[in-house]
Amino acid sequence: MYMAKVVGSVVSTQKDPSLVGRKLMIVQPVNSDGQSVRHQEVAADSVGAGVGEYVLLVRGAGARRASQLDDGIRDVNDCAIVGIIDRFDK
Amino acid sequence: MYMAKVVGSVVSTQKDPSLVGRKLMIVQPVNSDGQSVRHQEVAADSVGAGVGEYVLLVRGAGARRASQLDDGIRDVNDCAIVGIIDRFDK
Amino acid sequence: MYMAKVVGSVVSTQKDPSLVGRKLMIVQPVNSDGQSVRHQEVAADSVGAGVGEYVLLVRGAGARRASQLDDGIRDVNDCAIVGIIDRFDK
Amino acid sequence: MYMAKVVGSVVSTQKDPSLVGRKLMIVQPVNSDGQSVRHQEVAADSVGAGVGEYVLLVRGAGARRASQLDDGIRDVNDCAIVGIIDRFDK
Amino acid sequence: MYMAKVVGSVVSTQKDPSLVGRKLMIVQPVNSDGQSVRHQEVAADSVGAGVGEYVLLVRGAGARRASQLDDGIRDVNDCAIVGIIDRFDK
Repeated sequence: MYMAKVVGSVVSTQKDPSLVGRKLMIVQPVNSDGQSVRHQEVAADSVGAGVGEYVLLVRGAGARRASQLDDGIRDVNDCAIVGIIDRFDK
Repeated sequence: MYMAKVVGSVVSTQKDPSLVGRKLMIVQPVNSDGQSVRHQEVAADSVGAGVGEYVLLVRGAGARRASQLDDGIRDVNDCAIVGIIDRFDK
Repeated sequence: MYMAKVVGSVVSTQKDPSLVGRKLMIVQPVNSDGQSVRHQEVAADSVGAGVGEYVLLVRGAGARRASQLDDGIRDVNDCAIVGIIDRFDK
Repeated sequence: MYMAKVVGSVVSTQKDPSLVGRKLMIVQPVNSDGQSVRHQEVAADSVGAGVGEYVLLVRGAGARRASQLDDGIRDVNDCAIVGIIDRFDK
Repeated sequence: MYMAKVVGSVVSTQKDPSLVGRKLMIVQPVNSDGQSVRHQEVAADSVGAGVGEYVLLVRGAGARRASQLDDGIRDVNDCAIVGIIDRFDK
């Protein structure tokens, strides 16, 4: 999992059916000092994270396990917010 | 998911059967300021994206879930355009 | 697999059900000289590793194979500590 | 998918049964200007690509979908050449 | 697949059951000139590679296909040595 900060969201009208109605957040990966590392990605939010919050990201098949879609919808997503980080303990 | 800009396409005559007839776009990953990050990739387009547009990319098994191929065709693709980005909200 | 040093943990109240009750450790990937490489990640611990120890990390589906969750819980995790490193032999 | 240039091949006598008899090409990832990016990898060739040609690479499970092995052989490969690039259109 | 040089091994007493009894080699990815690229990883050896040899690595699910574990053991490994490189042909 990666630590990231939510910095915004993307608006997309024309997209895969599995992404309709989902919050697609722009996330900046960070280290445990809150410093930016790597590059921004877009993650589907399943825990109600808001802009400015630190979150946990998962990628790949794990991201699809975080969603509850209707039967017959094949989820294309490969990045999900699966937790809100309250505190880094070091 | 990654944000990217469509910058062109590749022409390939000799290729895997699962790639025949599909638009194979050259995409440059970007951040939400439109700045290039990482390196170019090639993505199968399933939403009708054109050169110059900002798009959402998925990789791996998610990319194969974005395609609708005939029965018996094993899709080898590992990168797909799954949305056109209208706007970055920050 | 990656070598890493455990540097802390994250506290997260609001998270995916599959992450509840698990130790989510902040890990810094290292080389076999103990030098930091790449960036920090968060890994679910399944071997009882403590802060300051060197560990083995796996990513992706392998990480989900390291956990024993109750039936019906879909594990979203994509990074796990699967061993404590006693010694680097070179 | 990645764009790459074929720069050679590896000779390996002692290897996994699933790799026996396959062409294992050394490939240098490139951008659409033909400039080297990232680092060299080794890809199983399924389209008859030669040294000096530009090709399309897939990674992971997609690479295993590009091969036709005998029953009972578990393919370990994770990188395949799935197309020869004739031209970059930009 | 990646080219790598075997530089040592890790000793780990406390680890996932699927890793018991396996050789866990420290590998340094290289290019076809033998120069180090990227960072060290740990790979399970299934071909009898020794320190100083150049090898082929696979990652992810492919790595689990290289092992023959007893029934009921869920392999957590995500990196395997699947070939010894005799020569780079360029």
